[in-house]
Parts: sequence; C-alpha cells; structure tokens
Amino acid sequence: MTIPKGYRNWQTVAVSQRDDKDSLRVILGNDIAMKAYRSNTLPFPDGAVLVKPSWKRVKSAEFDNTFVPGGLMWVDFMVKNSKKYASTGGWGFGRFIEGKPADEKVHATCFPCHQVNVKDHDFVFTRYAP
Amino acid sequence: MTIPKGYRNWQTVAVSQRDDKDSLRVILGNDIAMKAYRSNTLPFPDGAVLVKPSWKRVKSAEFDNTFVPGGLMWVDFMVKNSKKYASTGGWGFGRFIEGKPADEKVHATCFPCHQVNVKDHDFVFTRYAP
Repeated sequence: MTIPKGYRNWQTVAVSQRDDKDSLRVILGNDIAMKAYRSNTLPFPDGAVLVKPSWKRVKSAEFDNTFVPGGLMWVDFMVKNSKKYASTGGWGFGRFIEGKPADEKVHATCFPCHQVNVKDHDFVFTRYAP
Repeated sequence: MTIPKGYRNWQTVAVSQRDDKDSLRVILGNDIAMKAYRSNTLPFPDGAVLVKPSWKRVKSAEFDNTFVPGGLMWVDFMVKNSKKYASTGGWGFGRFIEGKPADEKVHATCFPCHQVNVKDHDFVFTRYAP
C-alpha cells in the first residue's frame, strides 16, 4: 500500500479527539467516499478511501482552554475494494508513520476492532459531521 | 453577511478543540486561503475566507476515550477585504447559529480578541496542520 496522493486536499467527513493518545484528528474522504456519505449510501462503494491524519494535541499558546494540532503522529487510511479485501469487510487498512508503513502487527489490529464495534456501519467509525 | 456557499466542500486548514465550550471544530479555507497557507503568504490576500464549524463534543458510543462531533453549535467565518474591513485588520467576522447571523454584540467581540492575540499572524489564530 502507498499513501493516497493528494489526500490532504480532500473534503472533511468529521473530526475526532482521542484522550488516551492525546491526539486530534480529521477524517477526510475522496470523492467516492464523500458522495456515499452525503447520499447515505452503505456499504461504501469500491474506490472509496478514507484518510485520518492524527496530530499530537497541544495547548494553544495564544488562547486559553484551546487545543490545536502539534506534530503529525501518523496517517491512517481505509480503502474499499470488496474483492481484494474480502476477508476484512472489503476494506484495506493502512497506517503510515513519517511516510512509511507501520509494521504488520499494527495493521493486524485494525479490522478486529472495526469489526466488533461498527459492523453495522460498513466497518467505518466516522459519521458525517453536518 | 451571508454564509459562504459550499464551504463544507472546502479543504482543511486544521482542527481544534475548546474545553470551555466543550466543542470540536474544523477550520476550512477557500482556494485563496489555502494557497496563502501553503505558500506561507502573510497577510492573507483579499478574497481569502476561513470558516469554522463548531460541533458539540460528545463521547463516541462505540469507542472508549474518543470524542466525536455532536450537533452543530455554530459556524464562524472570516472574510478578507482590506478596504471594506479596514478598521478590523482587513477581516470581516461572522457567526451563524442555525443558519442565522448572531447579534451585533457577539460580532463586536471577535476582532478585539484576534487583535490582542494574533496580530503577528494577520489576526488569524489557525496555523496549517501538515
């Protein structure tokens, strides 16, 4: 797998914050994914790609009670290809740290968690934020 | 002022979290704003628009330690027009709550805070998240 080109220019599905990782994230989608979200289409069609850059959560130096992105921790993504990834709900999962793929052990943890928690949403946690 | 059309399709500058408002936000920019960010151009050129939807921060029902967008609280934006808004650093400020502009008292609080805290960044708090 390679990081999808130009993902930083994609549209926003939603944002999230994770306390245990002390991170702030944005979830971006390619055109196929955004169209599916906006038309409430499930399962996502083949070709849909979601990408989630996770930044360290840091205190704003300029405004109280506010947290902003620090350094980029990693970039996760999910690619829908119902044949290629049939054994993992039709999704391929990837994590890149400093531009390089994480090891296989990390990737092996992705699907089991999505499978247990969000099977009814085509294995995708993120909902579209209006 | 009216809400800029199609802003939800704009690219992402960064995200933020505010504890005192218990909110998660994304900061989006139109093409002029994104080009300025990516080329480190300050001040922002006329025509740059930044928009910030703020959602209620709610616990994910599906994953521990994780917070996601709840309802949309309001949408803030800044429009650069150095002549029209000369008295407020070249920026016009707007907040919309359920599609309707907030009252004048709310708007009067925008610039003073930006002026005090981020004068050296053309009155804009948000930095581009890589």
